[in-house]
Amino acid sequence: MEKALQKHYEWRGKYEIALRARLNDAADLALAYTPGVALPCLEIEKDQEKSFELTRRWNTVAVITDGTAVLGLGDIGPLAAMPVMEGKAALFKKFGDVDAIPLCIKSKDVDELVNTIALLEGNFGGINLEDISAPRCFEIEQKLIERLSIPVFHDDQHGTAIVALAAVKNALRLTGRTPAETRIVLNGAGAAGVAIINLLLKAGFVDVIACGRDGAIYKGKEGMRESHAQLAETTNPRGVTGTLADAMKDTDIFIGVSSPDCVTADMVRSMNDKCAVFALANPIPEIMPHLAKEGGAYIVGTGRSDFANQINNVHAFPGVFRGALDARARVITDEMKLAAANAIANYVTDAELSTEFIMPSALNKEVADAVAKAVYSCAQNSFLS
Amino acid sequence: MEKALQKHYEWRGKYEIALRARLNDAADLALAYTPGVALPCLEIEKDQEKSFELTRRWNTVAVITDGTAVLGLGDIGPLAAMPVMEGKAALFKKFGDVDAIPLCIKSKDVDELVNTIALLEGNFGGINLEDISAPRCFEIEQKLIERLSIPVFHDDQHGTAIVALAAVKNALRLTGRTPAETRIVLNGAGAAGVAIINLLLKAGFVDVIACGRDGAIYKGKEGMRESHAQLAETTNPRGVTGTLADAMKDTDIFIGVSSPDCVTADMVRSMNDKCAVFALANPIPEIMPHLAKEGGAYIVGTGRSDFANQINNVHAFPGVFRGALDARARVITDEMKLAAANAIANYVTDAELSTEFIMPSALNKEVADAVAKAVYSCAQNSFLS
Repeated sequence: MEKALQKHYEWRGKYEIALRARLNDAADLALAYTPGVALPCLEIEKDQEKSFELTRRWNTVAVITDGTAVLGLGDIGPLAAMPVMEGKAALFKKFGDVDAIPLCIKSKDVDELVNTIALLEGNFGGINLEDISAPRCFEIEQKLIERLSIPVFHDDQHGTAIVALAAVKNALRLTGRTPAETRIVLNGAGAAGVAIINLLLKAGFVDVIACGRDGAIYKGKEGMRESHAQLAETTNPRGVTGTLADAMKDTDIFIGVSSPDCVTADMVRSMNDKCAVFALANPIPEIMPHLAKEGGAYIVGTGRSDFANQINNVHAFPGVFRGALDARARVITDEMKLAAANAIANYVTDAELSTEFIMPSALNKEVADAVAKAVYSCAQNSFLS
Repeated sequence: MEKALQKHYEWRGKYEIALRARLNDAADLALAYTPGVALPCLEIEKDQEKSFELTRRWNTVAVITDGTAVLGLGDIGPLAAMPVMEGKAALFKKFGDVDAIPLCIKSKDVDELVNTIALLEGNFGGINLEDISAPRCFEIEQKLIERLSIPVFHDDQHGTAIVALAAVKNALRLTGRTPAETRIVLNGAGAAGVAIINLLLKAGFVDVIACGRDGAIYKGKEGMRESHAQLAETTNPRGVTGTLADAMKDTDIFIGVSSPDCVTADMVRSMNDKCAVFALANPIPEIMPHLAKEGGAYIVGTGRSDFANQINNVHAFPGVFRGALDARARVITDEMKLAAANAIANYVTDAELSTEFIMPSALNKEVADAVAKAVYSCAQNSFLS
């Protein structure tokens, strides 16, 4: 990966500004700048919604972080987070034709972050939160959703939830199980884990067990933090207790958003027939695919591009925002997330679908287009209802 | 100008994001995003200055406003200010190859604005403040200069000062006068006026009279606001009192950054021989060029592209920031502003210089290049001294 560092020195930034207005002569300048620019300014002053027509706002999303939970690197600070945000901005443009502005904010205070973002709202058509540590990310997102009238979407939560649900849906297509009868165990009850579980419940799954570092989360467990106590209320209907190994027994699907190598082939062996293992820890999954297969897994997926069945947020966020921007949605609802997951899953045709091909390519722009269309339709329908 | 509105509806934004990194296949994604991006992140975490090499920061300037003093339109708010900021961003790219991010902030509170901008510092190599009302703009800029370690430049003040000084310098070349013997009267002692006067004094001018709405500003005048009281200390050595008409008598150069049609041909007639009139109010100058000529003006300049001798900030800001970014300057000093003014003035050769041609074209990128070179050299020299 020395090559990646060298490429970053060559690029000197992974995005730049490009002109959409001609500025070749005095006549151009008179239209795009003074005196012509006064007219669009006055139009927006009269009707603030016109900012979505007369400026780039309609197509612009801020990619915002405080640098507290960057990739697997942790709290490396706002400056050091920028290469990731720039990469994200590049992906937004490439797959969603969304203009994304990376902004790293030098504060860890929830209210200061919320206020800073709120003061910048008018520049953007949406806010993509990124790499903000839990449980702060829940509060920051919730406060922003209440305060702003543009969509706010913490990708580490909801982007991951959408792609995980898409993978689960296609596992069900291959095994013929229904959501109601499927047993799921999830390891890593942080930002992504909580969001995945909430979306699974919305999608009709019932038997879901969440595990934290100290094993299964269940009603009445002592010393739980708030987000885990909430999970205990809505998950684990069989009241399973014990370690992750205990919780995995007799389940159909494992989802990991936790840490490298915490699952063994024996643990997979204790799962039901035709089980699926989605080990999403990056870059080293909870269990390597060949070991999961050794333990009898029928389907294996990871976050990595060098194994089959890559499950990656890139499947989701460009299309989600493309659809939300096009519909001028004020919020990204659970229904829009479910629609996005369906679009990703259904992009794989029955003929293509196999244990080695449950997810479409993360680099296929048509997937983003399909997601955008689904999210757009869903947003339109909710406006009408 | 209906056409300008129509063009803004067509453009739907005057800038967009463009990719600098290739994202065509999984190998590209592994370099620009996960897992490759981790290395540049860690490099910046170790050495924060590396953000100027491994991200776009080295070439990125924020164009920031609160929308309180937009063009001639006044306090139209942050959303309505965006068409101007986008135009400015486009000009930054076109003439300075600077990537400018327009940001309109929904606050009028000085400390909240300063804090918001300070929290965003790490994203940028410089801050261009724009269209912020006086006297708040002075305090905001001063506090930011003290707090940030990247250049902060309020263009309405210093950009205007640089181009006005360039025009004055070339008027002197044509008339053979020296700064010390030249009498200047300036009307409109707001943000631009105060900055012009301060730069004129730095450039060796001594006999400068500032006029506000109630005439000449002089030591001991009653009821002056703070910025005027400061001007009274440093200007008007002859102690001139009375109206603008009184102050203009027997002066060599008039500079207007005030309001339309406040100067008459008779007032110009009261000035010295071979006088220069720079009527910069936009779009309607303090006096129309043909009337100023009728009053005996030897040289006339305005802010408009449809008259000779256009004096426009576009001459200055792209090159000023290009030079400051290239030198990684932490501040834009008075010496750098003087160097910029000299570069603009001297771009007009002796052979070209005439009463009808004292300023180079505002749309000549070579002018920005010359300004950038001068500012860069000046910054380098100040680092060495």
